[in-house]
Amino acid sequence: MQHNKKVALKNLLFSKKLEFLMEAHNGISAKIVEKTGFKGIWASGLTMSASLGVRDNNELSASQVLDMLEYMADSTTLPILVDGDTGHGNFNNVRRFIQGLEKRGIAGVCIEDKEFPKKNSFQEGRQGLASIAEFVGKIKAAKDTHQDPNFVIVARLESFVVGEGNILERAYAYREAGADALVVHSKKNTAEDILSFMKDWNHECPIIVIPTKYYSTPTDLYRKLNISMVIWANHTFRSSIRAMEEVTRRIYHEESLNSIESEVASVKEIFDYQNLKELEEAEAKYFSGLEIDSPIHTALSLN
Amino acid sequence: MQHNKKVALKNLLFSKKLEFLMEAHNGISAKIVEKTGFKGIWASGLTMSASLGVRDNNELSASQVLDMLEYMADSTTLPILVDGDTGHGNFNNVRRFIQGLEKRGIAGVCIEDKEFPKKNSFQEGRQGLASIAEFVGKIKAAKDTHQDPNFVIVARLESFVVGEGNILERAYAYREAGADALVVHSKKNTAEDILSFMKDWNHECPIIVIPTKYYSTPTDLYRKLNISMVIWANHTFRSSIRAMEEVTRRIYHEESLNSIESEVASVKEIFDYQNLKELEEAEAKYFSGLEIDSPIHTALSLN
Amino acid sequence: MQHNKKVALKNLLFSKKLEFLMEAHNGISAKIVEKTGFKGIWASGLTMSASLGVRDNNELSASQVLDMLEYMADSTTLPILVDGDTGHGNFNNVRRFIQGLEKRGIAGVCIEDKEFPKKNSFQEGRQGLASIAEFVGKIKAAKDTHQDPNFVIVARLESFVVGEGNILERAYAYREAGADALVVHSKKNTAEDILSFMKDWNHECPIIVIPTKYYSTPTDLYRKLNISMVIWANHTFRSSIRAMEEVTRRIYHEESLNSIESEVASVKEIFDYQNLKELEEAEAKYFSGLEIDSPIHTALSLN
Amino acid sequence: MQHNKKVALKNLLFSKKLEFLMEAHNGISAKIVEKTGFKGIWASGLTMSASLGVRDNNELSASQVLDMLEYMADSTTLPILVDGDTGHGNFNNVRRFIQGLEKRGIAGVCIEDKEFPKKNSFQEGRQGLASIAEFVGKIKAAKDTHQDPNFVIVARLESFVVGEGNILERAYAYREAGADALVVHSKKNTAEDILSFMKDWNHECPIIVIPTKYYSTPTDLYRKLNISMVIWANHTFRSSIRAMEEVTRRIYHEESLNSIESEVASVKEIFDYQNLKELEEAEAKYFSGLEIDSPIHTALSLN
Repeated sequence: MQHNKKVALKNLLFSKKLEFLMEAHNGISAKIVEKTGFKGIWASGLTMSASLGVRDNNELSASQVLDMLEYMADSTTLPILVDGDTGHGNFNNVRRFIQGLEKRGIAGVCIEDKEFPKKNSFQEGRQGLASIAEFVGKIKAAKDTHQDPNFVIVARLESFVVGEGNILERAYAYREAGADALVVHSKKNTAEDILSFMKDWNHECPIIVIPTKYYSTPTDLYRKLNISMVIWANHTFRSSIRAMEEVTRRIYHEESLNSIESEVASVKEIFDYQNLKELEEAEAKYFSGLEIDSPIHTALSLN
Repeated sequence: MQHNKKVALKNLLFSKKLEFLMEAHNGISAKIVEKTGFKGIWASGLTMSASLGVRDNNELSASQVLDMLEYMADSTTLPILVDGDTGHGNFNNVRRFIQGLEKRGIAGVCIEDKEFPKKNSFQEGRQGLASIAEFVGKIKAAKDTHQDPNFVIVARLESFVVGEGNILERAYAYREAGADALVVHSKKNTAEDILSFMKDWNHECPIIVIPTKYYSTPTDLYRKLNISMVIWANHTFRSSIRAMEEVTRRIYHEESLNSIESEVASVKEIFDYQNLKELEEAEAKYFSGLEIDSPIHTALSLN
Repeated sequence: MQHNKKVALKNLLFSKKLEFLMEAHNGISAKIVEKTGFKGIWASGLTMSASLGVRDNNELSASQVLDMLEYMADSTTLPILVDGDTGHGNFNNVRRFIQGLEKRGIAGVCIEDKEFPKKNSFQEGRQGLASIAEFVGKIKAAKDTHQDPNFVIVARLESFVVGEGNILERAYAYREAGADALVVHSKKNTAEDILSFMKDWNHECPIIVIPTKYYSTPTDLYRKLNISMVIWANHTFRSSIRAMEEVTRRIYHEESLNSIESEVASVKEIFDYQNLKELEEAEAKYFSGLEIDSPIHTALSLN
Repeated sequence: MQHNKKVALKNLLFSKKLEFLMEAHNGISAKIVEKTGFKGIWASGLTMSASLGVRDNNELSASQVLDMLEYMADSTTLPILVDGDTGHGNFNNVRRFIQGLEKRGIAGVCIEDKEFPKKNSFQEGRQGLASIAEFVGKIKAAKDTHQDPNFVIVARLESFVVGEGNILERAYAYREAGADALVVHSKKNTAEDILSFMKDWNHECPIIVIPTKYYSTPTDLYRKLNISMVIWANHTFRSSIRAMEEVTRRIYHEESLNSIESEVASVKEIFDYQNLKELEEAEAKYFSGLEIDSPIHTALSLN
């Protein structure tokens, strides 16, 4: 199954259609994205960090990210592409991170050409771009590390974000180093960076975009540009914030649950997401007769 | 500050007014509950588990719960009362769990008189009640373990849920063993269990209720009954599920972010919850001149 | 490779010769056991716990054990059989533990028929034996959980240790439930328990012994009894204690390293165990030219 | 008690006598160092890494180091000074690391002026020195982060190791930035670097040395130079390697425990290090009568 997840992600990347990944940041959001119908998940560094209360500046250690990813991979049959930031250090940290990802059933990782510790791309102020040589070394190290040939390595180009670097030169270098696909990232509120890149790109490998800032761009434009994949990068999380703000505010002021009970998911729905039914069936199978009407129970329930 | 959190929780428990705790399950929900205005947080076992994609049947290990609680305590100045299930094993596991809680700045813990591994109280089927003697041992062990005298130990009575045990006999035994307060739990959809208990209870210590199932009960009833605290136990999480389902569904069908951008929290709002401003100020203070116009930067940005 | 580890452990269990597992408790001891020539490793609950400073009474959570096992599995090409105690709870905790083991490249697990939280078998005082029905349920759950058919499930019989239960009845029940092999455990200082068991056992599956207490029994006896495997269960760790006590005592009194330098492993030997050479080669491959004589370096080394 | 550990470390640093820290790398070695009589512990990055099977090149994440340090701090009443490498990233990672250390009862941290990811100082090949400005920022960030005023910040000078940088200029800058003490590190096999430094140093703050390579230097020299503290940095671990190699080799060849039983620590000694007696007393106190002759036990042991 883990093998199949990697094949599934690779198939999405190389499908003839424009495909979509939806963000998740923990087990429940991964389950929701799967139930909605999406074919793949983006494990966002921003939202995994923010959901835990920390910043998207490598405040989470590599192993803390792996811990969360294990919960996520265990929660879904969908392939997960992980936002691997800059790889948590140098080429050697990239190698260790990928070993951890493969063990946990992750389908692929995206690493970006900035310096460790990274800054979120939409954060104000200077961002440090890695040299081509250093980042090419990371990609090669990544490609030589993964054991399943279908594990996906995506290289993320931050030149438009940082405002430095020859992005095409970098794109070809990363592709030649072995990247399976490239993310062209931009913080403009139109798709002009993407248009500019695609005009000159020779389509050697799949291109992925993340239209968080240029959200109003029509999706058909990406089809026309032969872009392979769109990542909706943080909206699952962003929707949860607004809802939590509103419901806690109402409960705070109303000092009652009465008016909100019908507007939130029921406890039964939580149990369904947890697949409690499977546990009850397993209990009947592996633990039957041990609790009901047994002398153990009689003894334990004295008092 | 950690000391103050414990005092703050104790003050809430012994205040003359009815007080409220609002559920949180990770860092961001803790921040939201604080921003809303609540004075304390309930770290729910159900919602911490469900948010990570696992069941509320001790599928999370004690140390995995502590990991999440550390993120939560670091995210808020509010006191956190932790749903400690049955204490993750016997009296000795209770001791170790409390040592972990105190180190992480948690204000108090609630343990319940069921057997390990526990079942969620609203789960169908048999539930195993602990003997009075075993649970009294846990409370005593808990009281002898915590180092800060203000750390709060709450004992949760599950007799109404399980349908066994003399709840008043247990309440007095737990109180005598040192419990600072008691949760009287019920799965009925009216407050009749609570009314029945309070009629006979001699008010030796604060009583806490969790009206998840009897949500329509008017809150003033708790005031009349001299109940000390109400826990809104899972609604922050339950609101987030519904929102994530709806927004991912719309994005899935619309293949666009355009219509939802204004309805979800902005990236800027995430940055505010993360207190990114503090990091930018710290960078100016501790890292100034290192990035801008320095020879390091010039060298690094070649290409 | 992970698949091969499981096959390797199974082959050891079913080999015609008496085979041996040597205890390890962390990464370095696993490396040492491999270098010594052993074909397999016993990850001891006692020594993993004691090395971390805690007791062998489930003071380590299941996930803390998994963390250590991941370091160990990453450190050796040998198959590791894990001392899984009682499975960290009920049948469902057994299932989750095995899922964690398989992801981390562990070859097999041994679970014992006592109650959670367990006591070390050599600890004084009462020990609680599980009922046959409960433990059979755990074995069945374990067998239905592992994905690689070669993952090994060993059932450990504690009847001789606890002084209760019909051990043969249990042995047949565990075997029928699917156990691949059985450990017959004893705390006597002769092999009389083992002799007694083997006299009546029909050799349906491999038998494993752990002669910690009956250490003076000649190993050929196990060959004569058709025992399959001997576990030297804690001696790697026990040797390290005596050495650390002696060397720290000498340094403390001599206030000098001079006399002990030649008697302890060199820093170079540590580097060899860490395979530092591989990192240096990798640096040459993935990071070459980035540090020496580059403008980056020149800039960074100012001052 | 945690507060007292910090005071104890500070007192050692400012004592009139030459004081010694002995290396430990896990719970048991911390217990052994305490039992031997030492007054403080050095938690070595090299040996914590190597004991877990990984390299001293930040292959352990910051949180993985914190996990091990929590076991260590829980295992000893001695103050622990942590080898914090370069602080696991930039000034912000330093801040987060120190927050984690304080929660876990660590007394102080030593950070070194190299680049992340660090290399072990005795590793061949180029080492990257941090700029003075960057490292001073880290020290200031560290000093502004710790909440207990007695938490100790030590700055480690790597100029002699790297072969670059004006070490005196750096020493004064780090001291001025707030470092409580300085480590002058050297990889020469004589103390000439130390002599050279002390000749010119104005004794503004305590100086610490780590004579791993210049082990034959008489300790009285450090007294003459007014050095404050000597760290025996890895010998506890190095002694354990040699012992584990020898004992596993003998067991491998002898296929017997018989000749080594008397030469290794007994299981009873392990129990003593674990303080099993305290658990037995606690069981009598908190769990008495629950196991022996109770109906629960009778029921559980039916078969």
